[in-house]
Amino acid sequence: MNHYPPSIRNAIQSLSRLPGVGAKTAERLAMHLLRAPATEVTELARNLMELKKKTRLCARCFTLSDTDTCAICSNPAREQDILCVVEGPAELMSIEKTGVFSGLYHVLHGVLSPMDGIGPDDIRIRELVARIKRGGIREVVIATGMQVEGESTAAYISEILQPYDIKITRLASGMPMGGDLKYVDPITLKHALEKRYAV
Amino acid sequence: MNHYPPSIRNAIQSLSRLPGVGAKTAERLAMHLLRAPATEVTELARNLMELKKKTRLCARCFTLSDTDTCAICSNPAREQDILCVVEGPAELMSIEKTGVFSGLYHVLHGVLSPMDGIGPDDIRIRELVARIKRGGIREVVIATGMQVEGESTAAYISEILQPYDIKITRLASGMPMGGDLKYVDPITLKHALEKRYAV
Repeated sequence: MNHYPPSIRNAIQSLSRLPGVGAKTAERLAMHLLRAPATEVTELARNLMELKKKTRLCARCFTLSDTDTCAICSNPAREQDILCVVEGPAELMSIEKTGVFSGLYHVLHGVLSPMDGIGPDDIRIRELVARIKRGGIREVVIATGMQVEGESTAAYISEILQPYDIKITRLASGMPMGGDLKYVDPITLKHALEKRYAV
Repeated sequence: MNHYPPSIRNAIQSLSRLPGVGAKTAERLAMHLLRAPATEVTELARNLMELKKKTRLCARCFTLSDTDTCAICSNPAREQDILCVVEGPAELMSIEKTGVFSGLYHVLHGVLSPMDGIGPDDIRIRELVARIKRGGIREVVIATGMQVEGESTAAYISEILQPYDIKITRLASGMPMGGDLKYVDPITLKHALEKRYAV
């Protein structure tokens, strides 16, 4: 890499900072972009800038959005009285792909993890309780992952929501144990959603 | 992906056009960039634009450069009478990494491949002959790959250069057969360079 001109060296350096992209891959990507039409590269660069500039968190559910309220929260056709609690936006997307959930979401942005110093105040649990207090919610589906942290986050949330008169459910077993919601196939996840059980 | 806001969807779409980047990886990269500092993303976007805008081919050896004449061609400390003929800029870099070659290069930008309709006029062979005709070259090291196309390109070049009073050499065997110069380890390539033989 030392002998590439600065224009190429800088691009390779920037690309190799991406996760899972090593020096060889970054070099291959840069060579591809050099051969690609200029419009494609311009579009990529512009889209990466826009990604960063326009994206914010939905003021209601805290998922990624480029409007103040996300498309799901502002869709009147969604069931307004059922909330699905997920770890992050990617997990929300996994559930949307199943097509069986038509309620609203609440994105925690993490799970409880005492080992990493992540407590209830570090994820959006307070905001979840506030939404429940405002009323109008009939059911909360806790769709955190099946790993230890996901399970204990689910347990914590179901306990903290006990005082309120709502049904609290958890995704059905059927999920592979230790499985990460982001990588599970839609069929399994769909089954798990349909068979969700009350805790 | 359908349910991401347009800013994220566009970035994922652009990223998934990169070679070896599927929908899942593009999504993961976009999520990484959303969390990354804005300066890192700006730098990446700027470097990709610069890559495309500044990079051209060296007027002498045709490698990638961001000046009219590349750093190697304009370095007076390099041996001016020995030319190493390579398939592309990545192969040039592989040879530079060995540190044993201090001459100049000639980048073909391809190999002869009748099956793909690539003949002598489609790669920089004419320009190679012109450089030889101008004189001052004592040796040409043909460092094309060991695949069929690389070998036949080497044979073609060594034949076309016979009329000129120069030594023509080929990389020593020692390269794994069928090996691609881009992926060979520097030690093997260094050995192959040192043991190069006259054809």
